[in-house]
Amino acid sequence: MYDGVKGFRDFYPGEMAARRTAIDTLEDTARRYGFREIGTPALERTRMYEEKSGAEVVEQLYSFTDRGGRDVALAPELTPTAARMVVAKGQALSKPIKWFSTRPFWRYEAVQQGRFREFYQTNVDVFGSSEPAADAEVLAYAADALTALGLSGEDFEFRVSHRDVLGGLLEAFDAEIDVERAIRAVDKRAKLDPAEYRALLADTGLSEAQVNEFDALLDTPEGDLDELATFAGTERVERAVENLRAVLDATADFGAREHCTLSLDTARGLDYYTGVVFECFDATGEVGRSVFGGGRYDDLIEGFGGPPTPAVGVAPGYSTLPLLMQRAGVWPAEEIATDYYVLQVGETRPVAARIARELRDRGHVVETDVSGRSFGAQLNYADSIAAETVVIVGEQDLAEDAVTVKDMDSGEQTQVPLDGFPGKHERPTYDDVA
Amino acid sequence: MYDGVKGFRDFYPGEMAARRTAIDTLEDTARRYGFREIGTPALERTRMYEEKSGAEVVEQLYSFTDRGGRDVALAPELTPTAARMVVAKGQALSKPIKWFSTRPFWRYEAVQQGRFREFYQTNVDVFGSSEPAADAEVLAYAADALTALGLSGEDFEFRVSHRDVLGGLLEAFDAEIDVERAIRAVDKRAKLDPAEYRALLADTGLSEAQVNEFDALLDTPEGDLDELATFAGTERVERAVENLRAVLDATADFGAREHCTLSLDTARGLDYYTGVVFECFDATGEVGRSVFGGGRYDDLIEGFGGPPTPAVGVAPGYSTLPLLMQRAGVWPAEEIATDYYVLQVGETRPVAARIARELRDRGHVVETDVSGRSFGAQLNYADSIAAETVVIVGEQDLAEDAVTVKDMDSGEQTQVPLDGFPGKHERPTYDDVA
Repeated sequence: MYDGVKGFRDFYPGEMAARRTAIDTLEDTARRYGFREIGTPALERTRMYEEKSGAEVVEQLYSFTDRGGRDVALAPELTPTAARMVVAKGQALSKPIKWFSTRPFWRYEAVQQGRFREFYQTNVDVFGSSEPAADAEVLAYAADALTALGLSGEDFEFRVSHRDVLGGLLEAFDAEIDVERAIRAVDKRAKLDPAEYRALLADTGLSEAQVNEFDALLDTPEGDLDELATFAGTERVERAVENLRAVLDATADFGAREHCTLSLDTARGLDYYTGVVFECFDATGEVGRSVFGGGRYDDLIEGFGGPPTPAVGVAPGYSTLPLLMQRAGVWPAEEIATDYYVLQVGETRPVAARIARELRDRGHVVETDVSGRSFGAQLNYADSIAAETVVIVGEQDLAEDAVTVKDMDSGEQTQVPLDGFPGKHERPTYDDVA
Repeated sequence: MYDGVKGFRDFYPGEMAARRTAIDTLEDTARRYGFREIGTPALERTRMYEEKSGAEVVEQLYSFTDRGGRDVALAPELTPTAARMVVAKGQALSKPIKWFSTRPFWRYEAVQQGRFREFYQTNVDVFGSSEPAADAEVLAYAADALTALGLSGEDFEFRVSHRDVLGGLLEAFDAEIDVERAIRAVDKRAKLDPAEYRALLADTGLSEAQVNEFDALLDTPEGDLDELATFAGTERVERAVENLRAVLDATADFGAREHCTLSLDTARGLDYYTGVVFECFDATGEVGRSVFGGGRYDDLIEGFGGPPTPAVGVAPGYSTLPLLMQRAGVWPAEEIATDYYVLQVGETRPVAARIARELRDRGHVVETDVSGRSFGAQLNYADSIAAETVVIVGEQDLAEDAVTVKDMDSGEQTQVPLDGFPGKHERPTYDDVA
């Protein structure tokens, strides 16, 4: 008997079926938006993350030296790999490059509810457009995907901010401020108690009065965004405000405006973000943490040695998304489904197998006996796999050129002519043949 | 600029689309047979493979010590993980357990055509039935999957053998034979020149006369299988011959008999196989190596601490399958496809975005401008993504409450009323509206 590795999960068929439904929905929505699937490796050179990912990610790397002496790491996120792939193809890729992929990533971190060491994400990115429409398309994709999962506007909200508004405001104070640390403090605003949060901000170089002033600015309502530009008096903040407003306007055209809320204390840590950033939250607040996030990272591809290539993306994951969907009551039932079980009684396998084949050819999920079991054992098994219809192929029935069709819900059954099943019906049930 | 890791591949959208079609086909066929998807971790305890996998696999492990001091390895195959999962749930799983999953595995081996260090397989297994029907169902699944990929009986064959026929025959010789090594020699029969192969066999303890006699037995035609039992005079070979014949008979009921050839020199190395084994080959011989294989492994679950649980499975992989499909001319085109590009001219984004949304709601792949580009640049881009239909939303058209629908193949275009597009059509093309 062996144990699995802590933080790595086994998914049995019921739970996997629910996860597959969610993954299919997010991928199908991405395809309809013209995002194209890519396939990416589990291992990358450790150096790539050491040089390009944040310190926190590097501390959590699963890294080792392979048998050929290469320092390699299990990918902790997609973005560096995607950037490497964009750079590798150079000008051969027509812009915008719109990619998606679903796969696991690995980080050695503390395991808790909704956080594992192996976690799956669907990454959706646009490379090669700096236009607000690209940010808006990513937001619209995310909103459509969540809507397709059965969530409504009452269930989720995208808290949208802009890295340059935050950075530019901090810059505007007459003080020596550690801007990176200050933004990290802002990122914790909703999580910490006010005193702790203010202490963090004060630590970055702001006076108590400046902390108060800055913190009040974070609550600026959308209609007063221009006041931020006036306060800072810099082109950086003016442009950032304009860009933020243009992105929100574009989400209106793309049908996602109702899901977006201005929320200047959304900072998305530091990493490589450069423009609009956003996080998806449970609108009821019941799921306290961010469900997923995204944003613009215009400098990353250039940092990988490519030409300047603006980029924006989002990465819904399947560790936190189930928490939101369960809260909203739209997580799919964790159970398997079977259209038909073809039950063999006596030496009837040739006919039973033929019927099973014909039903499978029509696209149905069909099982038949492969264990040589009794009538009762087969019926129990059919029940355990939630078979909707059981087709009983018995020697007596066959002598009369017939089979028996049983509805597993009601228990009702009826004899039907052999050549009438499945016959002309695409998906014959008891009701069709009774 | 960073390099990827040797033997690990990046898949760009065109190639990925072809691979996805193949994966979807193999998975869809598995679903129709009632195999249920499971999800499995990338990492397992190294000890599990050291104790349960063959020496060759262990030599090729990507293994390391994680930050918590655990000795872990990237999974080189699915079977040990599946066995661990079966044992972990004990009697809670109703038998037969029918599972499938598609995922990458990792082995540090020499990279060559059709062999990589990261490789994808769809594993399909039945646990809990020792009946020939289970072996036959796995073979029928494989045949149906290849047929669904567009391959015919002329393209592939399953070479079927039985581990106990081989082992039992070797046992029957009056000699001290290293049976494991002898079976490994048989596995190389088709690959080595005859002298080398005979030397290998002689090395295992067979005299020259015995080598000749044993080798001739391997060519026993199907009709004469009973002669093998007579030769050996053991119950083991008699039962094995009977089982092999029963499996082949069952494949007839399941519609896969025509794809199966008796081939006693198919041995599948050693590993954990205990009964019927088979390998899929290119029937034309052009692809020289085995495309994939499978077989029965009745002792593995017990070896993992579970109750006796017979098992049989197959694992088509996406490194060699493309070689066969390319040879047969059925590998999908490595290209992306787009149903609609909605082209914006002037300030028409609200209408263009609405049309794009309506088309996406009908399930189509639709892109629209997110880069603020000119008419010509958008048309070039639409061409680069192989858009079938371009919907031109221009200010002039809109002034007349119309849009222009352009067929990208013929270049023909026509103006249609705005409220007629997409209107009642599920998937309107130029021909529908012209």
